[in-house]
Amino acid sequence: MDLNADLGEGFGHWTLTDDDALLDCVTSANVACGFHAGDASVMRRVCDTAAARGVRIGAQVAYRDLAGFGRRSMDVPPAELTAEVAYQIGALRVFAEAAGSAVSYVKPHGALYNRAVWDDDQAAAVVEGVRLAGGELAVLGLPGSRLLAHAGAAGLTAVTEAFADRAYTPEGTLVPRGEPGAVVHDADEVVRRSVGMAVDGGVLGADGSRIPVAARSLCVHGDTPGAAALARRVRAALEAAGVTVRAFA
Amino acid sequence: MDLNADLGEGFGHWTLTDDDALLDCVTSANVACGFHAGDASVMRRVCDTAAARGVRIGAQVAYRDLAGFGRRSMDVPPAELTAEVAYQIGALRVFAEAAGSAVSYVKPHGALYNRAVWDDDQAAAVVEGVRLAGGELAVLGLPGSRLLAHAGAAGLTAVTEAFADRAYTPEGTLVPRGEPGAVVHDADEVVRRSVGMAVDGGVLGADGSRIPVAARSLCVHGDTPGAAALARRVRAALEAAGVTVRAFA
Amino acid sequence: MDLNADLGEGFGHWTLTDDDALLDCVTSANVACGFHAGDASVMRRVCDTAAARGVRIGAQVAYRDLAGFGRRSMDVPPAELTAEVAYQIGALRVFAEAAGSAVSYVKPHGALYNRAVWDDDQAAAVVEGVRLAGGELAVLGLPGSRLLAHAGAAGLTAVTEAFADRAYTPEGTLVPRGEPGAVVHDADEVVRRSVGMAVDGGVLGADGSRIPVAARSLCVHGDTPGAAALARRVRAALEAAGVTVRAFA
Amino acid sequence: MDLNADLGEGFGHWTLTDDDALLDCVTSANVACGFHAGDASVMRRVCDTAAARGVRIGAQVAYRDLAGFGRRSMDVPPAELTAEVAYQIGALRVFAEAAGSAVSYVKPHGALYNRAVWDDDQAAAVVEGVRLAGGELAVLGLPGSRLLAHAGAAGLTAVTEAFADRAYTPEGTLVPRGEPGAVVHDADEVVRRSVGMAVDGGVLGADGSRIPVAARSLCVHGDTPGAAALARRVRAALEAAGVTVRAFA
Repeated sequence: MDLNADLGEGFGHWTLTDDDALLDCVTSANVACGFHAGDASVMRRVCDTAAARGVRIGAQVAYRDLAGFGRRSMDVPPAELTAEVAYQIGALRVFAEAAGSAVSYVKPHGALYNRAVWDDDQAAAVVEGVRLAGGELAVLGLPGSRLLAHAGAAGLTAVTEAFADRAYTPEGTLVPRGEPGAVVHDADEVVRRSVGMAVDGGVLGADGSRIPVAARSLCVHGDTPGAAALARRVRAALEAAGVTVRAFA
Repeated sequence: MDLNADLGEGFGHWTLTDDDALLDCVTSANVACGFHAGDASVMRRVCDTAAARGVRIGAQVAYRDLAGFGRRSMDVPPAELTAEVAYQIGALRVFAEAAGSAVSYVKPHGALYNRAVWDDDQAAAVVEGVRLAGGELAVLGLPGSRLLAHAGAAGLTAVTEAFADRAYTPEGTLVPRGEPGAVVHDADEVVRRSVGMAVDGGVLGADGSRIPVAARSLCVHGDTPGAAALARRVRAALEAAGVTVRAFA
Repeated sequence: MDLNADLGEGFGHWTLTDDDALLDCVTSANVACGFHAGDASVMRRVCDTAAARGVRIGAQVAYRDLAGFGRRSMDVPPAELTAEVAYQIGALRVFAEAAGSAVSYVKPHGALYNRAVWDDDQAAAVVEGVRLAGGELAVLGLPGSRLLAHAGAAGLTAVTEAFADRAYTPEGTLVPRGEPGAVVHDADEVVRRSVGMAVDGGVLGADGSRIPVAARSLCVHGDTPGAAALARRVRAALEAAGVTVRAFA
Repeated sequence: MDLNADLGEGFGHWTLTDDDALLDCVTSANVACGFHAGDASVMRRVCDTAAARGVRIGAQVAYRDLAGFGRRSMDVPPAELTAEVAYQIGALRVFAEAAGSAVSYVKPHGALYNRAVWDDDQAAAVVEGVRLAGGELAVLGLPGSRLLAHAGAAGLTAVTEAFADRAYTPEGTLVPRGEPGAVVHDADEVVRRSVGMAVDGGVLGADGSRIPVAARSLCVHGDTPGAAALARRVRAALEAAGVTVRAFA
């Protein structure tokens, strides 16, 4: 099982994610590329550390929206979105390669991630941006998303991911953030669900039914207090359950 | 003689340089990378056209200052400047390579260009950013500038350039923009000076003396009305004088 | 009849609208406030000229989106939108008042304008921002829009406007920009429609039927080549038809 | 003695200053206006709280530089700087007045603050922006600064301030941040110096000599961990020493 987290989400004088601590336990780092968070200095530092620790580097591409942290859905025309995705990948690549590593996958952030689940045009535009950037990058996303469908159709590796701290509907989609119970706040429960997903390939849904979650990567959140400590617990629990924690192939 | 111009200096809904017309006559295109001008869509379009026409692509790196068009000197700490230069090169590279070409040189823009003439720290920081970006890029700048000194010391190709529409001091530096006569507005005179620089290796200074200008590239401005027409005239006059107009080696 | 136009839509080194020429013929100036276009220097200059010529000043509030010129719909949470609207009004007010005038109305720009037609939450949020800014500002918008409904409910003056260069559906709404015939490009036709709206209170719809358009203000576009010349023609034709062109009461 | 602090320095998803806690002990709040930090939502919230607690509201105007937190000196042409200062004051005023309060003073931030000490053109440009904004605002700055000289010459109230956590040169200027001992980190020492400044009108300089510091306001820093706790201690110590802590007249 791969363990991924959003990283490098500071900007200028502001900090957010505890990058050093997170890079100690995840196997894949979704590095912000300057559009919703992250600046050139943060990107460089995170890439250097990730490379030194053998953590895989991915581009966490986003809408151009620093003021909204990329969490506001935007009607960006597909051709612009394609160019913006490629721009972000290229900018990150220079730091990954300078550190002796590479950008090996792409994961959309926030509102773009959610929209690429169902919006065919934007999902296709993101994949076209990944393709434009070259280098045979993998694409990380929700099972069943338009994003992964387009990634597969384009011949890219589509990597499914699951969220240990999010409730799932019986259809296997995420319970929207606004709804009650959407986010699992209890750390023990998050750890339990992580192991369940990795070992049994499923979680209990909001209605109690068992929902199969076939994910090759598990996302732990990085932007909350205690995020790094929780990620460490998740990793330890996975390893204690016999799961090999390593970057997806 | 190489002919270079600043290009791709639109942003979003705004346009500035007549990129298509300029790409018809220059041999090197200094493409804005999004910090003082340029956005991902403009960068992609310009790279596609430049590649199709065999025009060399360079990164026109700048201070992060859209509101000031990169023309306001900024005390950016060297480490930040280095990262920002690399970021811009990486972002442009993705479009140059997608178009089947490459970023082959770097030229600082506006206030960064002027400051890198004399500010040792910022000049070194720019060169360190170029080095970080890899790919053995050339650096374009003023003869005698700290920028070219650092580029040479770092083992990069330092390419001297001259401005046909700017007056020179007896010391061979540019007369500052604010001073009278700093900019040559007469098109015939600009053409004459271009040929003089290419054939005789010099111009008449503001005080009438002959100033040697040993430049491997000639910069024609792209951001004024009639810029493309003037660039075409310069190129035609150079060729009529027997000068081979092609990208620097 | 009031004649309004979008103005002050340059930014930094970029220009767009011919502000001086437009301020010679419109009676109400929708001044960009820095979120989709406009910067402090442009705002100051436009307010000075508008005040000197007795042109009414309005705040052209927009999404925070310079890269997209405010033309991309964004899911901005209502409370944030309210604060952003008030911020823009306050910033413009300082220049209007320094020029001896005032901000007397608000008109949303681009995607926010279109969204406030039907999106109840965003329309209410904009009106709440106007109310927060105080000063009993009028609100300019489409007849039947949620924006004007909320403005009226809040006790603000709701001013209806029409577009002489846009086709109307039989329901009196604008034909969306993407559809054929949405924009009237023929200048003579634009002039004819302007007079028809002012004198007869209606236009011919895309299907040939007569559509009543009860507008107190007529919008002429400012961001296209020839915009000022067309605006002058519209004004002359209105006056020739006996229409008094002056700012709405 | 007045007690002022920089506040509202979050931006979007990022937080920095503990605004609620600081507003419990300072008498004047220097509210960021969106150029180096702060957004419309933060500004509204801070103004509401400040007004409710009777804390005076000031505009913390800055260079337009979110990425550098306004800490990088910029060669902004005076006319632009004037317009930008007025813009920021106007934007903040809308929230202060909506909360039933007012913007009553201006304090430049970071690099602009330091530059306005010695740069006559920028100092004059800031004061011109304050004057343009109207409302007879006071200006807060270093004793002996060009800023306060211009403010006085323009008929504005010039308010001197001192820093309890900064070392002073024998000439009464601040020891530059880069130099050893420039910042006093020991909390007890900061408290002691605060009382010394308020009661004795002076501090011990870096060389041991006694330096008169005639300040009407004392600045406590808000952007460091423990800032609010330290501010509370300073206030308590001042009051214990018989100093009346209230906003400057």
